[in-house]
Order: sequence, then C-alpha cells, then structure tokens
Amino acid sequence: MLFTKVHGLGNDFILVNAGIGERFPDDYATLAKEMCDRKFGIGADGLVLLLDSGVADVRMRIINSDGTEAEMCGNAIRCVAQYLYEHNIVRKEQIKVETLAGIIVPQVILKNGMVEAIKVDMGEPRLQRAEIPMVGEAGQVVNDTLEVDGQKFYITAVSMGNPHCVIFVEDIASIPLHMIGPRIEYHPAFPKKTNVEFVQVLNPQEVRMVVWERGAGPTLACGTGACAVAVAGVLNGLTEKKVTVHLPGGPLQIEWADNGKVYMTGPAREVFHGEYTVYKS
Amino acid sequence: MLFTKVHGLGNDFILVNAGIGERFPDDYATLAKEMCDRKFGIGADGLVLLLDSGVADVRMRIINSDGTEAEMCGNAIRCVAQYLYEHNIVRKEQIKVETLAGIIVPQVILKNGMVEAIKVDMGEPRLQRAEIPMVGEAGQVVNDTLEVDGQKFYITAVSMGNPHCVIFVEDIASIPLHMIGPRIEYHPAFPKKTNVEFVQVLNPQEVRMVVWERGAGPTLACGTGACAVAVAGVLNGLTEKKVTVHLPGGPLQIEWADNGKVYMTGPAREVFHGEYTVYKS
Repeated sequence: MLFTKVHGLGNDFILVNAGIGERFPDDYATLAKEMCDRKFGIGADGLVLLLDSGVADVRMRIINSDGTEAEMCGNAIRCVAQYLYEHNIVRKEQIKVETLAGIIVPQVILKNGMVEAIKVDMGEPRLQRAEIPMVGEAGQVVNDTLEVDGQKFYITAVSMGNPHCVIFVEDIASIPLHMIGPRIEYHPAFPKKTNVEFVQVLNPQEVRMVVWERGAGPTLACGTGACAVAVAGVLNGLTEKKVTVHLPGGPLQIEWADNGKVYMTGPAREVFHGEYTVYKS
Repeated sequence: MLFTKVHGLGNDFILVNAGIGERFPDDYATLAKEMCDRKFGIGADGLVLLLDSGVADVRMRIINSDGTEAEMCGNAIRCVAQYLYEHNIVRKEQIKVETLAGIIVPQVILKNGMVEAIKVDMGEPRLQRAEIPMVGEAGQVVNDTLEVDGQKFYITAVSMGNPHCVIFVEDIASIPLHMIGPRIEYHPAFPKKTNVEFVQVLNPQEVRMVVWERGAGPTLACGTGACAVAVAGVLNGLTEKKVTVHLPGGPLQIEWADNGKVYMTGPAREVFHGEYTVYKS
C-alpha cells in the first residue's frame, strides 16, 4: 500500500490515496491502529483516506490511531489540500473536500507555483453558554471566574463546534498544564468536558498558547483551539481580528472576518512517501 | 534518501544503506535527530547506517535519536542481518558486522529460504562484583538482599558488558516498575547505575520479564537484559540453560552455552521502505 507521511504543525498523518476502491471498507479501524503504531507500524496520529466523491472534488476520511473516526481536522485538511494540489490530483486553488462535517473548501496559497500555506474556513464561533455547552445563566462567558480546587481562573468560553475554555495569563511557561488541564477538562461547569487553552498576549497581533485537548492531553497543535483563542482575544479587547497564534508545533494565522467566520491559515509538510506491506489476516 | 524501517521486538530503526559514501559524515547526529523525530520526521529509536568495511562484510553505525552513537545493539544487528540477507546484499548465513564493540557475527536462521530468526553471540557474562560494577566484598551476587527505601529485594547481578540487576518475583504484573525501577537504577550499590529486570518464572524453559533500562526507563525489548535474566535463572537454579524470555515486545530465545557464551535468537521485521527528503542546511 503506497502512502505519504504528512504533518500540519506536528499533527501527523498517513495519507493514502485510496481512490474509488475502498480496499478494506470494514477494516480501516484495524488497519489504522496497526499503521499508526509508532513502534511496530508507520506511526501517526491518524490514517487519512482520500476517496472519490459524488458531491465534491474528493472525500476525506480520518481514522484516528485508536480506530475511531474523526469528523474533521483542520491540520489534516491542510495536508490533504497541499497533497492534492502539488501532486496534480486536484489542481485547483479552492478544493472541495467532502467530510463527515460537511463540505469544507480549503484554499491553497501559492508562492512560485508551490503551496506556501492553506487557508481553511473554520465556521462561525458560538458563544452562548448553552452552545459551549456550559452550565449557568444564559449569556456569553467572557473573562468570568471559574474556581478549580480553590484557585480562581478568568475564563472565556468559545465553541468552534467543540468546546474551548480560554485563559489569558502573564506567562504560559509558568502553567503546570498537566495538573490544571485535566481539572478544567472535567470541571462540572462543562457537561461535555472541554479543551483548555492558556494564552500569553505578546502584542495585539501575536499570542502564544499551549493546549490541553479534551481526551488527548497536551498536543503540538489544535486548529479549533487557535481559532477559539483568536475569538477570545477579540472578545476581551486584547488582540485584533487578525492574529498570529504560536502553538508548540508552530504558528497559525487566524482571522475572525467581518462575515462572522473564522479563517485559519497554516502550513502543511510532506515528510516522506513509502510502501507498506498490509498483512490482511 | 532511501531508507527501510525495521524493528526487533518493537525497538525500531531507520536503516540506510549508505555504502562507501558517507554522505553526511559530520552531520549524522543532526540527521538522526531530525529523521528519528516521531512527529516531524520518520520516527525511530535510532538511525542505522550500513557502510563499507575493510575488515568485515559491512560496517554498522547506530546513531541514537538523541544524536549520540551506540557501540552495539542486539535488536538492531538482527534487523541488519535480515536486511542484508533478504535483499541479497550479503547472501551469507553468517555475516561479519564491524561495530564499535568489535566484529559481531550474527547468523541468519532460514525457513523456506526466508529469514525466520537471527542468532547473535552476545559474549560471556561477567559475574564478579567488581565487574558489574557493584560495591561490596568480592564474589558473585546471587539472590542477595538489596534494601531500597526500607523494602527488601532479592537480586542477582550480571554484566553483559553493561550492568543488570535481576529480581525474580511471583507476579511481574504487580510490580510498580516506574516507582522501583529508578530507585534501583540510582541505588548507591551500583556506581555506574544499572538496568533493572523483574522476572516471573513460568516453567524451567520459559520466563516473563519487564525491564527498566538505565537512562531510558521501561522499554519493549532489551537484548542484554534478556541474556542477563537467562544467566540469573541458571545461577538461581530456576531455569535451564536454554530458555524463552518473553519481553513486552515479544519473545527471545536465550542459550547460555557450554562454551560460556550467551546466544540470543530472535526475529526482525521490515515494516516499510520509503524515500525521505533531506534538507541539508
């Protein structure tokens, strides 16, 4: 099975151009677990399948390393757009990708004919408590206090389709993320749990963040988290509507546009391509 | 740069057949760190270079993922022997490999013309306290007590070129390896620190072990550790001279032969091959 290994800010995927023929339709969970194993397999956060689509240029399926299927992933779709463009599979600057979250249209940004970055429409943020979801009175949660084991945090809650709890701090290096992250993730204020972002404002156009992902712990890059942070920065009057968000894996440009939507622009990188022997039992 | 990804019981390597031309002689540390990165690179425990040798069939260099160079590795040399034989590069059943620890001669064991396992001469165990090294009176350390934070362990000390502290227990599943491992590794009785093995005897021909590697923590497979365990089993009258050692990554056959040497026989596996783009800065 031919594959290409790609990553978006260190969030890494095995990309397989499966075409019209889904070779192992019932067994991708097993295959993904085997291929994503970092010692015995190829190693990745997920297996990304490119399939023929009846409604878009391509259909994308993301099978996580634990065999579950993801609806969408901002880092993966950037890699897919770059791959399709640079390998002349879909030579369009706007590529329609069918996902479980609907049709997403990443846009490749070119420099000297090569893809320099990929811009993705991440949709509109939802800010009402019930939309996060968060318990309590109706309204937005902007710089509100949250008490965690007697310690007070000033939080801003944003949903980008998934819940985010954004906390601005003086110095993110001083935050014991492993300690505080899970306590906020499982805090009773968040009935569906939450992602947690700690953010340090460098200037109105630039912030630095670390993220504790719901169900995954600290990660190198979280696209929806960067979007939530940009929205929270504007809501708190700390940043402008266009901001560079520095994640542990690298920077993303986020814009909360006048049409209400959030656009994420970032890189993708092809690391190697290879051939994997599938042992079909 | 063409490469092959291999593993021996989950101890995984990027194998590059560099031939006579060492392309980046001064820069393999940087290259290994970049290629071994599990998110941004190919991902492996080490980069193994195959080079021309003036004194053996091939010369092997092992650059660890942190850029340091290893003298020898039992898991890596099994992978190298299988690769050389099956790709018709050195079509001999006994292959002479030049390493920093001298010339090692792994033997391929064939089944239907394919390599089923690889047998490696791991040398003679050293058992005197000073040879481990361990502080205390001269003599062997067989089933002696070692006190760790008030808790008594019955240990057997074996050097296979590196120190091992072998502890037989009723049930390895009950051992909190993360707690006890580092305390024994850094115990003042071991001036050069030690690897730590907990072993459960299943029957005189079969044991199960977990290992805390010096400087590395728990690993899936440690070849010298399995050899030390087999030697300790014989010294304690618990096992025969030929024993199957089940490690977390899989089984190894160990024989403490009548010539005094320890032979390790185990598998190697080629997972995929690929091409990696080297960004020479």
